Amino acid sequence: MKLQDIGEFGLIDRIAGKVRDKFSVPIGIGDDAAGIRPAEGTLTLVTSDMLIEGVHFDFNLTDPRSLGRKSLAVNLSDMAAMGCRPRYFLLSMGVPSHVSVDFLDAFIAGIMDRADQFAVGLIGGDTCSSKSGFVISITMMGEQLPEQTVRRSGAVPGDMICVTGTVGDSALGLQLLQRGEREGLPVLRHLDPVPRVAEGMALAEARLPSAMIDISDGLAADLGHILDQSGVGACVHLESIPLSEPFRCGCNSMDLDPFSLALAGGEDYELLFTVPPAQQHLVRELLTGTGSSVTVIGNITESRHLSIIAGDGSEYTLAAKGYDHFSGSASVPDRREAQQ
Amino acid sequence: MKLQDIGEFGLIDRIAGKVRDKFSVPIGIGDDAAGIRPAEGTLTLVTSDMLIEGVHFDFNLTDPRSLGRKSLAVNLSDMAAMGCRPRYFLLSMGVPSHVSVDFLDAFIAGIMDRADQFAVGLIGGDTCSSKSGFVISITMMGEQLPEQTVRRSGAVPGDMICVTGTVGDSALGLQLLQRGEREGLPVLRHLDPVPRVAEGMALAEARLPSAMIDISDGLAADLGHILDQSGVGACVHLESIPLSEPFRCGCNSMDLDPFSLALAGGEDYELLFTVPPAQQHLVRELLTGTGSSVTVIGNITESRHLSIIAGDGSEYTLAAKGYDHFSGSASVPDRREAQQ
Repeated sequence: MKLQDIGEFGLIDRIAGKVRDKFSVPIGIGDDAAGIRPAEGTLTLVTSDMLIEGVHFDFNLTDPRSLGRKSLAVNLSDMAAMGCRPRYFLLSMGVPSHVSVDFLDAFIAGIMDRADQFAVGLIGGDTCSSKSGFVISITMMGEQLPEQTVRRSGAVPGDMICVTGTVGDSALGLQLLQRGEREGLPVLRHLDPVPRVAEGMALAEARLPSAMIDISDGLAADLGHILDQSGVGACVHLESIPLSEPFRCGCNSMDLDPFSLALAGGEDYELLFTVPPAQQHLVRELLTGTGSSVTVIGNITESRHLSIIAGDGSEYTLAAKGYDHFSGSASVPDRREAQQ
Repeated sequence: MKLQDIGEFGLIDRIAGKVRDKFSVPIGIGDDAAGIRPAEGTLTLVTSDMLIEGVHFDFNLTDPRSLGRKSLAVNLSDMAAMGCRPRYFLLSMGVPSHVSVDFLDAFIAGIMDRADQFAVGLIGGDTCSSKSGFVISITMMGEQLPEQTVRRSGAVPGDMICVTGTVGDSALGLQLLQRGEREGLPVLRHLDPVPRVAEGMALAEARLPSAMIDISDGLAADLGHILDQSGVGACVHLESIPLSEPFRCGCNSMDLDPFSLALAGGEDYELLFTVPPAQQHLVRELLTGTGSSVTVIGNITESRHLSIIAGDGSEYTLAAKGYDHFSGSASVPDRREAQQ
């Protein structure tokens, strides 16, 4: 079935029909604006992410359902990075004329997979045609007690730097996809990342992290955001960076530097956070409860410099620091500029 | 200066530097999410609009500053249609590589013109590259007492149908622009519409409208949204529809049917609302205070049918009902589908 057969308002009806009643809000889909009533005493947190065909995704490498799942996951990951409980989202789409209703049904099904899993409700958005590829913009809102909010700016010298799970898999997965691979952990982590929502909320509720961010631009670039906003530096031990076994094997067989991918690759959607040394054991206990691993990769310093130390004690120099949208993926942005 | 000279994070810094301190929020630009603290007892209203190059705008016909002003205006207009005070917005942009920093500065200046005028603060968003045209997605949030919210669903038989200002100017303006005209009221109303925020808030605070919407898809289509959601019909008197003098002259000289443009043209961003007959005089008094005119164009009926009556008593048949993104501008969507 073609989109022009059901029309703009038919599509909106189709999406609205998939919204669960349990996420009912004072004003939902179908008016000029949606209306929510935040719990008293809470902050409303809000984040937006835009995904554009040919920049963030390529339909030769992904499918509409995975794209839907990932589109919601990247916003859920931003909520996780604040330690916030996600509640609602708005979905805006620019849809090229060649896109079929089946394609959109699969995309929306992917969105709803992750929405149901993380108990977030679709309350509004916008649909329009696009002459320039498929465009997605999602705005997500969450609720949080003000004292539990974790900013990027709270890291202090002496804090330990922690990361959940493993890093680099997604960047390797993209390279594998581009070579025709369609299976395996790295590919799956690129196409369908899992946001660390429970981990972020548990850490925030226990008030353990002094600063936190999710790894979207790359471990080095995202650590850079924490350092810039906290006015501190860091020492990272290269050999401590958690790498998965499939990642090590893949890098080995493709003759890639695993640390370059792990530090600059991006799109891992793991949590990167800092904690006072005395609370390090509490972090491990807490995250074990969520099923996530956590690794200490270094510590915060006063120097305002990011130093990465290799196993032999020498300083490791990173060629590419992370993704800059206007310079291309292999850019080396001045860290001073890396503020988001 | 080219965008690649300043990079993604340089651009974000540049935008953040234009944000006024007076709109300070608990968490502003520069973290994984923004944080606001809504006033106790209020609803938070939220709306998103996406604008895509080649669909919503054409750089042969507009300039970046006007585009910025209009991008914010269409979201402000959604807030106005709920009778809500707009407070904050998030701006997401997909930017093609050929776009210059000067262009973006002008676009942001246009955004900030309207933001300052209507006292809304930029608190976040996303910037990324686009391989296919300039893409804008704005999410706006406002605060409102629950009892003052005006929905689309409250119209009842006997209510008078009112519209602010004049309609059709924007649609004529687009036709004039396409013929090379660059001046005059219709062109200005197309390029730089004024959202009726004060009017919407005044009406809502006085609790006068039973239903309200802004005219974006076209008078007939947007009235259709009210009728569908209220489960009612309407009788509109063609000769009552408010038309500006420049609009009448333009239609005359271009041999266009003014009523077709006025009913189906769209992008007027006037308010269309219904009120009980006894409160009609209060509406006029109230809106005179905001400097806006208001015209009664018909009344709500029980029949669930939209009837448009010409001056000679005959029924006027509208060829095109309004804009449908997936059928093209001259579409005639089934009114039953026209739910947004």
